[in-house]
Amino acid sequence: MTAVKLAVSAGEDQRDLRDIIAETGRKAREAARGLALASSDAKNGALITMAAMLRNFSHAILEANVLDVEAAKLAGRPSAFVDRLTLNPGRVDAMACGLEEIAALPDPVGAVMDHWTRPNGLHIERVRVPLGVVGMIFESRPNVLADAGGLCLKSGNAVILRGGSDGLNSCRAIHNALVSGLRQAGLPEEAIQLVDSPDREAVGMMLAGLGGTIDVIVPRGGRSLVARVQEEARVPVFAHLDGINHVFVHAAANLDIASNVVVNSKMRRTGVCGAAEALLVDEACAPTHLAPLVKGLIEAGCEVRGDANARAADPRVIPAREEDWGTEFLDAVIAVKTVAGLDEAMAHIGRYGSQHTDCILTEDAGAAERFLREVDSAIVLHNASTQFADGGEFGMGAEIGIATGRFHARGPVGVEQLTTFKYRVHGSGQTRPV
Amino acid sequence: MTAVKLAVSAGEDQRDLRDIIAETGRKAREAARGLALASSDAKNGALITMAAMLRNFSHAILEANVLDVEAAKLAGRPSAFVDRLTLNPGRVDAMACGLEEIAALPDPVGAVMDHWTRPNGLHIERVRVPLGVVGMIFESRPNVLADAGGLCLKSGNAVILRGGSDGLNSCRAIHNALVSGLRQAGLPEEAIQLVDSPDREAVGMMLAGLGGTIDVIVPRGGRSLVARVQEEARVPVFAHLDGINHVFVHAAANLDIASNVVVNSKMRRTGVCGAAEALLVDEACAPTHLAPLVKGLIEAGCEVRGDANARAADPRVIPAREEDWGTEFLDAVIAVKTVAGLDEAMAHIGRYGSQHTDCILTEDAGAAERFLREVDSAIVLHNASTQFADGGEFGMGAEIGIATGRFHARGPVGVEQLTTFKYRVHGSGQTRPV
Repeated sequence: MTAVKLAVSAGEDQRDLRDIIAETGRKAREAARGLALASSDAKNGALITMAAMLRNFSHAILEANVLDVEAAKLAGRPSAFVDRLTLNPGRVDAMACGLEEIAALPDPVGAVMDHWTRPNGLHIERVRVPLGVVGMIFESRPNVLADAGGLCLKSGNAVILRGGSDGLNSCRAIHNALVSGLRQAGLPEEAIQLVDSPDREAVGMMLAGLGGTIDVIVPRGGRSLVARVQEEARVPVFAHLDGINHVFVHAAANLDIASNVVVNSKMRRTGVCGAAEALLVDEACAPTHLAPLVKGLIEAGCEVRGDANARAADPRVIPAREEDWGTEFLDAVIAVKTVAGLDEAMAHIGRYGSQHTDCILTEDAGAAERFLREVDSAIVLHNASTQFADGGEFGMGAEIGIATGRFHARGPVGVEQLTTFKYRVHGSGQTRPV
Repeated sequence: MTAVKLAVSAGEDQRDLRDIIAETGRKAREAARGLALASSDAKNGALITMAAMLRNFSHAILEANVLDVEAAKLAGRPSAFVDRLTLNPGRVDAMACGLEEIAALPDPVGAVMDHWTRPNGLHIERVRVPLGVVGMIFESRPNVLADAGGLCLKSGNAVILRGGSDGLNSCRAIHNALVSGLRQAGLPEEAIQLVDSPDREAVGMMLAGLGGTIDVIVPRGGRSLVARVQEEARVPVFAHLDGINHVFVHAAANLDIASNVVVNSKMRRTGVCGAAEALLVDEACAPTHLAPLVKGLIEAGCEVRGDANARAADPRVIPAREEDWGTEFLDAVIAVKTVAGLDEAMAHIGRYGSQHTDCILTEDAGAAERFLREVDSAIVLHNASTQFADGGEFGMGAEIGIATGRFHARGPVGVEQLTTFKYRVHGSGQTRPV
């Protein structure tokens, strides 16, 4: 068993926890060395077997999940929380399918990203290698364990996973299935380790980097978790704090396209980080476009908080307050504002956005080009829904998250973004002149 | 003038310093916005003009430098330190030539790194954009100011530079020339700012990220500076702490190649981070190779600290102590050890190396392949000198430093490594299915 078993009584000696978690880090580092050199076949075989084991162990996983769900209900957790925690046969199968899809992706490790020959004959290659050890801190969704375990394995990284205490029984059962897959494929079981403790001290130790054994932290969960991780982590973090995404309907927007894209950007799913949170409408097209756009949103079930123009366009619009600009509603609510044109739209996005995903709707190629060039967000879209902000939709396969930082990984974080590179240089005895 | 002028009397109010440095950050952020959108022509024109200004102001720069050098001598600074601080007409011209070479590099900003079309017709581009604001902390070499200023400008980043107090007069004079170039090219003068204060508090503020206005810190200087930066920085750092580089002479090494490459790796320049610090010789070729290799090093003026085999091969070899393995001598000293073969060599490098640059010398392609694959260093070389660990030698043009971290930039950090990217997505009204 590679899950870290811990006594968690109130009087427990913290030293025990510290020792055990530090040991987890050392084992992960050791596993990462082996995994970095594992063949694509071995890794893909493990992923396929892990998927089979999830299906084989489906009954045990669902039984364990019932314990978590009942405890969460007893503890009065909100229904959205209980829903995220709940597994069913379809969700377990979806986890297994996810692992099979990851197995089908090209192996990023060893890929030659670039190569060139110098005038002195040195041949230089830039080759992808794994990052090392990933620390994943997540909240209630137990499926994150399977997704993150699979993505890290594929990219040759060991992973240390620490889920929310509400899902501990579910996570143990899923982890058990993943480890069976690793074992059967002959890969190190410590490649995917679960920190099996509700003690928050464990998170603090992970954020400190576990004495140099964690290379990057990926948080998955609500804003407060991500904020804590960004504030306290002493190692790099792949994360986004907010997805305050804008759709700007430019003067030259096609109304049919705008109507579809605006509703899809906001309402396809309101709880995802790629959902639009604000609609900016160019005053030049507001007389024709604003009323139908607002109507479309309201009829799709969205609350619209708007400026005076939006309220004039539809009496159902609620007055927007200053704090509505720059709010990530993550709900069927949108803020709507008319702007004086492209420059005001971009200034608004620069002031209130979160550099995640922003979109312009226009038939004017020049305006689109300026928007895509000047808006400083990880993803900038022209005439397409913000809900495409997703590694799968980008063609990267699954994603471990979306990053709004500027370093290393930006936008969807898939298997390639979980690698770094090294330079391999072949010579024939070259020395460097003085 | 964009240099931050500060009173530095002992009783100075720290609040003034804090306010002024914070203002520097805000101005840099503002300049970065303009610079990110500046044309290649504008940036290259500024670089050319900056080079001309350095030559025009050469006399003033050298006069200012004399003040620094005399003060350093009076303060009893070591001669190597005074040498690094000293400018002469040739060194000023070299700075100007460096800027002209940077002008001649391709502009990384706006380059399309990758692009693909999704089955739904979305066209996705991954495009280079600047990082934002670079904080550069350096010690005695005033030329770092011109190099870093030029590289950051080319890559569309604003830079805040803080040099060692010993070089403050020289830095002011060089900075003055650079700002003249910016001004004449119509670019924001705050693109290159000098923190004109010897107060160490300024460094602490920069390491904290200046309230979110510094995106990355690049330290250039001795080990203690880099260690402090790595320990205290709250933003990403591009740096290497040590260059403990190994040359492994494999059983199948060509002795002529090995003799040349070993001496060049160690002795071409002993104070650079790409210099070799340890020589590992396969016991299978030690009877023929060890004595001539050691002899070559000693005759080139190198002190050799060796194991029993090395001492048996040449009586001039000094016994190596445990701490000699893993020491960055940065001097004409090398540690020499015989190893039982490739695996022991790689294990030794894994234990004592610093993941900077390591080399195998062999005519056996399979052994070379294993070494390049399994040694986890930023640069791994086959049959070439470790002194090629340099951005210029890699064909990147100038470098701002070499990074041994695993994130974002690894190995030489040139203009491309000073950029990040964004995704530009063109659609024709696509919405995402539920």
